[in-house]
Formats: sequence, C-alpha cells, structure tokens
Amino acid sequence: MNPKAFHAMSYGVYVVSTWDNGRPTGCTANCAAQITAAPATVMVSINKDNYTNKCIAECGHFAISILAENSDPSIIGTFGFRSGKDFDKFADVPYAVKDALPVVTDSCAYIACRVINTMDSPTHTVFLGEVIGADVLSDNPPMTYAYYHGVIKGKTAKNAPTYLADEAQPAGKYVCSVCGHVYTGNIPFEQLPEDWACPICGQPKSVFKKA
Amino acid sequence: MNPKAFHAMSYGVYVVSTWDNGRPTGCTANCAAQITAAPATVMVSINKDNYTNKCIAECGHFAISILAENSDPSIIGTFGFRSGKDFDKFADVPYAVKDALPVVTDSCAYIACRVINTMDSPTHTVFLGEVIGADVLSDNPPMTYAYYHGVIKGKTAKNAPTYLADEAQPAGKYVCSVCGHVYTGNIPFEQLPEDWACPICGQPKSVFKKA
Repeated sequence: MNPKAFHAMSYGVYVVSTWDNGRPTGCTANCAAQITAAPATVMVSINKDNYTNKCIAECGHFAISILAENSDPSIIGTFGFRSGKDFDKFADVPYAVKDALPVVTDSCAYIACRVINTMDSPTHTVFLGEVIGADVLSDNPPMTYAYYHGVIKGKTAKNAPTYLADEAQPAGKYVCSVCGHVYTGNIPFEQLPEDWACPICGQPKSVFKKA
Repeated sequence: MNPKAFHAMSYGVYVVSTWDNGRPTGCTANCAAQITAAPATVMVSINKDNYTNKCIAECGHFAISILAENSDPSIIGTFGFRSGKDFDKFADVPYAVKDALPVVTDSCAYIACRVINTMDSPTHTVFLGEVIGADVLSDNPPMTYAYYHGVIKGKTAKNAPTYLADEAQPAGKYVCSVCGHVYTGNIPFEQLPEDWACPICGQPKSVFKKA
C-alpha cells in the first residue's frame, strides 16, 4: 500500500462547531461532504479523541463553517491544534449564532445540522446530519485542502484522518513543534521579534525548532 | 436554507468500481474521503438507485479510481450517466485489476477497499472500507469537482448528492439532454458532423437540445 495515493483525494477546510454546555466549541476538519440532496444531509468525520466529538454527540447538532482562501489561517490552528476541553477556541475568533449554532463568520458559507445517524470507524465517528439551515456568507473562493498545504504551507493535525507520521520536514527550515507550520518568510527566523507568534496556531516563537 | 452553500464544499472526481458476478462495473462519485489513518479507511457515498450500490454490497469490496485533470472526460459520462445494469461501462475504458479489483488506469491513483461498515441515509449508502491496497498511477494533478464544473463544463448526475434540480441552463447554448454537458466549442453546433458525440457521456449529436 502506497499512502501517497491518499494525497490525491480532494477536500475542503472546515470548522465543525457545536455547543459544550452553552459554550461554543469546535475543531478543524477536512472530511465533510454532502451525502444526499433531498432531504439535504451532510457528513463530518471527527476523531474520537477530539473534545468536539463528545460535544456533538451530547448536543445532537453541529455546524460546518466552510473556510475561504482568504480566511485568517490562524483559525485553522486555533481549531485544529488545540483542545477545546480547557481552551475557549471562540474567544478570539469572530462568530455568529445561526440556526441556533455557533458559526465562524470569517468563512464563505455555513451548514447547520441535526445528527440523524452515526457510523463508527477505528478512530473516528462519522456523523450524518440533516441540514436545518445553510447560507452563503461571502463570495470568496473556498479553501481547498490542497491550497492549505500548497499555499499556506499548513500541516496536518495528528488527529486528522489524513495524518501521516512521516510527513517530510524541510531540512534547515524552522518548523512549529505544535502545528508543523514551516516558516518561509523573508526575514531570517532568528531576527523575528520575540513576541512573534506562529500564524497558524498562535504559539510563541520559542516552540519553533530547526528541522 | 440556501442550497448554494453546498457549492462551497470541495470534492474530487472518482470512479467507484466493483465486480458484478465477475464483470467489472462502477459509477462516478464525488463523495469519497479518507476517514482514518491507522488503520487506513475510506468512505464512499453511493445512491441506492445506482446499480453499483447493490454490487458493492454483494461483492463486499470496492476500488476508488481518482481521476486526474487530464483523464478522458468521457469516463465521467460513461460511469455517471448510464446504468451498469444493462451496459458494460468498462468495454471502452482501459482498466487493470489491482488488489483483485477493477481500476480505471487513466487516473492518478487508486485505493482498493474491503467493506467493514455501512451507514444508511435517505437516498445514499455510505460504505466504509478498510484499505487493502493503494498506489499512485501518475503525477497528473487530481481533478477537483470545481475543475469538472468550471473547466470541463460538466453537469451533475441526478443520483449525485450534489444534484440541484434547478441547475441553470445557459440560454442559446446546445445542452446534452442525457448528461447536461453544454457545448462551448468554436465550430457552430449545427456544423458538427453527424457522427459527433457528447465528449462527456458519448451520446449522439441528436440528443442535444438548444437551451
């Protein structure tokens, strides 16, 4: 089996959100898809180790915010590389409540769902949701997973289905030890100010290591 | 609910294939995704009205051929707009048997699976497959659903989850009544030879109607 074959599958980049006892929470996901047209249903795949998994199961509802190419990339890091258990992911990310669910407003569309079925897999739960509301939020092009990797130079979270332990690290570059973001700026990394933070996950300069 | 929100989700273009009592068959799909990394599993969503659905359930195995941007677009029409019940879809489409499953060779990668779980939805079955083999077949860029719609000017099959009954038809253009392909060539449609065929589904010139 050549796992590079999986890289040829195409995805978007999404924030899947729900309520945690009245507090908004969520996580980044790339596995979301429309399953049926009428009635409209969509699925999301969420790692069982993600705090969001438990919260969706308890709430019975979730929203998908579809990130755009120009969405702030730190949203991906905030929702993808930190746990919502002890951290308020929505504290610094603008959101609105739509169809009674928290939605990231710096996105191009959202879909709100009520869970109607689930499917178990070795590490992830697939939630099937009946769509209760959906709207376009901007006409910016949707961010694809290929764009995230190729243009934003983002990496894959360990809990993502598409994670490969042997993702190559570029030699000599500074890499964020939290989210894997590779620094490619023109300013030499050593010259960056001490309060500089990872543009993906917001962690301080000190967590970067030379690959 | 604004169904245009669904258009912001990103997909690839795939042929999902299996055996029908020893005969290869399959259908076009855009809903396929990796669900877990270790062990590797992937899902596909197949309409219950598609003959391929019954064949996957009976065979217990399926393969995903990941189409590339330069894959022959008639493959999409052959597998997406005709039923495999009475038609041999693989008759004119080159394929190879890989990991004991038929795979479209004019693609950039394939993933072979054994069904380990299913999830029911109103019109589609979601098949979860444990990956038994996968490989890269070419380094051509994968075809995205956006590329199919935007560059190849392809339409959505009625059995696809993303089908919208009100997909707009461009006024004054000739449109294939079988697959919805809009003729955009430089030669006036009326001047095309009588043996000209739809590049997407292979149907004759006579099935085109002026929108």
